[in-house]
Amino acid sequence: MNTKILLQESDMPTHWYNVVADMPNPPAPPLGPDGKPVGPDALAAIFPDAIIEQEVSAERWIPIPDAVRDVLRLWRPSPLYRAERLERALGTPARIYFKNEAVSPAGSHKPNTAVAQAYYNKVEGIRRLTTETGAGQWGCSLALAGQLFGLEVDVYMVKISFGQKPYRRSMMRTWGANVFASPTDRTESGRHILAEHPDSPGSLGIAISEAVEIAAGRNDTNYALGSVLNHVLLHQTVIGEEAKRQLAMVGDYPDMIFAPCGGGSNFGGIAFPFFADKAAGKDVRLVAVEPTSCPTLTRGVYAYDFGDAIGLTPLMKMYTLGHDFMPPGIHAGGLRYHGDSALVSQLHHEGLVDAVAVPQLETFEAGVLFAKTQGIVPAPESCHAIAAAVREARHCAETGEPKTLLFNLSGHGHFDMSAYDRFLAGELEDFDYPEDAIEASLSHLPKVAPPGA
Amino acid sequence: MNTKILLQESDMPTHWYNVVADMPNPPAPPLGPDGKPVGPDALAAIFPDAIIEQEVSAERWIPIPDAVRDVLRLWRPSPLYRAERLERALGTPARIYFKNEAVSPAGSHKPNTAVAQAYYNKVEGIRRLTTETGAGQWGCSLALAGQLFGLEVDVYMVKISFGQKPYRRSMMRTWGANVFASPTDRTESGRHILAEHPDSPGSLGIAISEAVEIAAGRNDTNYALGSVLNHVLLHQTVIGEEAKRQLAMVGDYPDMIFAPCGGGSNFGGIAFPFFADKAAGKDVRLVAVEPTSCPTLTRGVYAYDFGDAIGLTPLMKMYTLGHDFMPPGIHAGGLRYHGDSALVSQLHHEGLVDAVAVPQLETFEAGVLFAKTQGIVPAPESCHAIAAAVREARHCAETGEPKTLLFNLSGHGHFDMSAYDRFLAGELEDFDYPEDAIEASLSHLPKVAPPGA
Repeated sequence: MNTKILLQESDMPTHWYNVVADMPNPPAPPLGPDGKPVGPDALAAIFPDAIIEQEVSAERWIPIPDAVRDVLRLWRPSPLYRAERLERALGTPARIYFKNEAVSPAGSHKPNTAVAQAYYNKVEGIRRLTTETGAGQWGCSLALAGQLFGLEVDVYMVKISFGQKPYRRSMMRTWGANVFASPTDRTESGRHILAEHPDSPGSLGIAISEAVEIAAGRNDTNYALGSVLNHVLLHQTVIGEEAKRQLAMVGDYPDMIFAPCGGGSNFGGIAFPFFADKAAGKDVRLVAVEPTSCPTLTRGVYAYDFGDAIGLTPLMKMYTLGHDFMPPGIHAGGLRYHGDSALVSQLHHEGLVDAVAVPQLETFEAGVLFAKTQGIVPAPESCHAIAAAVREARHCAETGEPKTLLFNLSGHGHFDMSAYDRFLAGELEDFDYPEDAIEASLSHLPKVAPPGA
Repeated sequence: MNTKILLQESDMPTHWYNVVADMPNPPAPPLGPDGKPVGPDALAAIFPDAIIEQEVSAERWIPIPDAVRDVLRLWRPSPLYRAERLERALGTPARIYFKNEAVSPAGSHKPNTAVAQAYYNKVEGIRRLTTETGAGQWGCSLALAGQLFGLEVDVYMVKISFGQKPYRRSMMRTWGANVFASPTDRTESGRHILAEHPDSPGSLGIAISEAVEIAAGRNDTNYALGSVLNHVLLHQTVIGEEAKRQLAMVGDYPDMIFAPCGGGSNFGGIAFPFFADKAAGKDVRLVAVEPTSCPTLTRGVYAYDFGDAIGLTPLMKMYTLGHDFMPPGIHAGGLRYHGDSALVSQLHHEGLVDAVAVPQLETFEAGVLFAKTQGIVPAPESCHAIAAAVREARHCAETGEPKTLLFNLSGHGHFDMSAYDRFLAGELEDFDYPEDAIEASLSHLPKVAPPGA
């Protein structure tokens, strides 16, 4: 038995899989402030046409342009691993596989969509992309993709991260991006904040406002987002498509699939291609794994809410903790989103996608066990998927069931070692919200009539 | 044409290649303080028998134990890449290939030998390994290898790096190693230094002394070294063996091979398996690339000198700048060694291995160009090989020669981003030694009669 199941570049998927085609119901439309559905043209100021088409498409298969595949093959297809050493350490009869998305130059799955977005903007004549970044994982991915397609990339990086996490900032600059500590004096939004709070540490919400403001105001500039939206999840489906083919090469098929779930692109990327089989009657469980400190799917409500903290975006029907919900500063920064992808949310609401919340200490315990057995030090986000898979593998050890488990190793932890340091020093803790704290932020949900009412 | 040329695990080398078998002359023996050759038994206090046998073996092929291959396949065979985007950016007719050793969990080629050393110690009943580390690349590799074979690993990390480079320290601890800021009060050597200099920032020499002292004093404890020695270079030959097979898969063969050269294991690893062909008459140039700030092969002398800064080791015949030569604090920490592998040195002395020195700024320029074209951010050490390959590729662009160039991408730069930051900010500089500075340290070479004199 091989540790790594490898595909050749010629086996790379030629199409993205669009889960909308197999959903039992059409996606709930985004709504404007007036409660009326927002049409695709509302997005034209900041996204290229091809992306907007993908955002609303119901086609099952969408071709991946050759130029996109030509960049993706710098690291794709990514290897699928059989985690035999982890299995032995757990004494489980379960077979554990993981897809290793840490092999991309940026160290995570994020470049899969960054490359596609950069390409479509390039062919539509855009010269510059703007985006926001917190810890820098998404900013790095877009910097890399922009560089490879000859686009300028301006990254608005939350000021406190800009100071505290200099390494991803340096990486973005190495790939030629301009990185600004947000709030800046380059935008109305930034100047407004700085006038009131000259020492503002910034926030993802402010950085989004700055990036969108610049993109909306300039014809040669667009905006790119790293998760949540339908087209982002679409671009990530190469992960699941490859995994399916790789498992078939060893004659296996997953009983359960685990992925971290923040905005949803990590989860959608590996799980959706298997949803096609599930929709056709196959018995496969798709498990979105979130932190107990930001338990969107497990403790939020399914309702229309803003995508951002401030209330600038259209309303999306999704699981949400309330757009002003403020999760604690856990180390899985990519999972601190108050809402979730509309597609993942709807599938969860319809009982087709499962969700589980894992406390922070359990995720790092699983991450360290994984590092000690398989070698790779995983990103804190990925530790969530590992922890859920480990739970299930232990359960299999009790019941004797030889289940096939698959998880998405969405990234490596090379830029998160201070989190491991704190974990090993016993300085991290779990955080569980009292019910009334979540009720408080949910009480601020926007009041909208359901569409058609 | 594929970007990545992949081998399956079943294609992994089954034997290490020992260059000694094909050298025109036997290696010059190490000498004791009395000027007499040191026998293998002098090493028995700190190395297992199997390693000592390999250190002095003249067998051409040495079998790789199955248990070692079983760990190596966690990341091996490593991919060979055709750097088409770099070629296009250079407008060169040269074909540029690189072997990607950054894919190991520790992020460099170093685990190739760490795994073998941990294995041989384990089977000989050793419970604990000690070693020293500067920036932490070797310490990480041994921590990983020790963990996978159930050995305790004690790493003596130079105190100033311990404080300034916390991420690799965290990585070692994640893999279960004990990491001590050297000088410590755990050893005579450490206590001696601390008594005189309580605030000592430490040095690699002191850390070596501590690690060796502990290993020499305990039956259940041995020492492991990450470069320089013959067995270390031997274990790295899997790199070149794989590369040769991968190039054959696309019907190519290198005209020139470039690798960074500090202690020599990086260079020997990729180059030696091609030396076998060279010895048989094949026209292939093997180019060791070093920094102008530590120009061992290009400006040192070929003489007997100590392997360490203090004078504890046997004398080795090698290119050296003098054991008390103090290179400046350049960012390619792995290339700051005053000497070089005895095997590489002898082959260079005999005109069979070429050497070139590259200034620091040129290496980072090449590294940034590589990151912008191929995506991967290289380690500063690896940037030396890239810079030399880029020089040659540009030369080919002038002459029109379609040469085949191969270099060793020995590691990624994820833990070296502050160096890139300083380079991009224009804060780095080149350093060239005046001839008399090198003459000064060379004047301290130990006086030994040549063996047999």
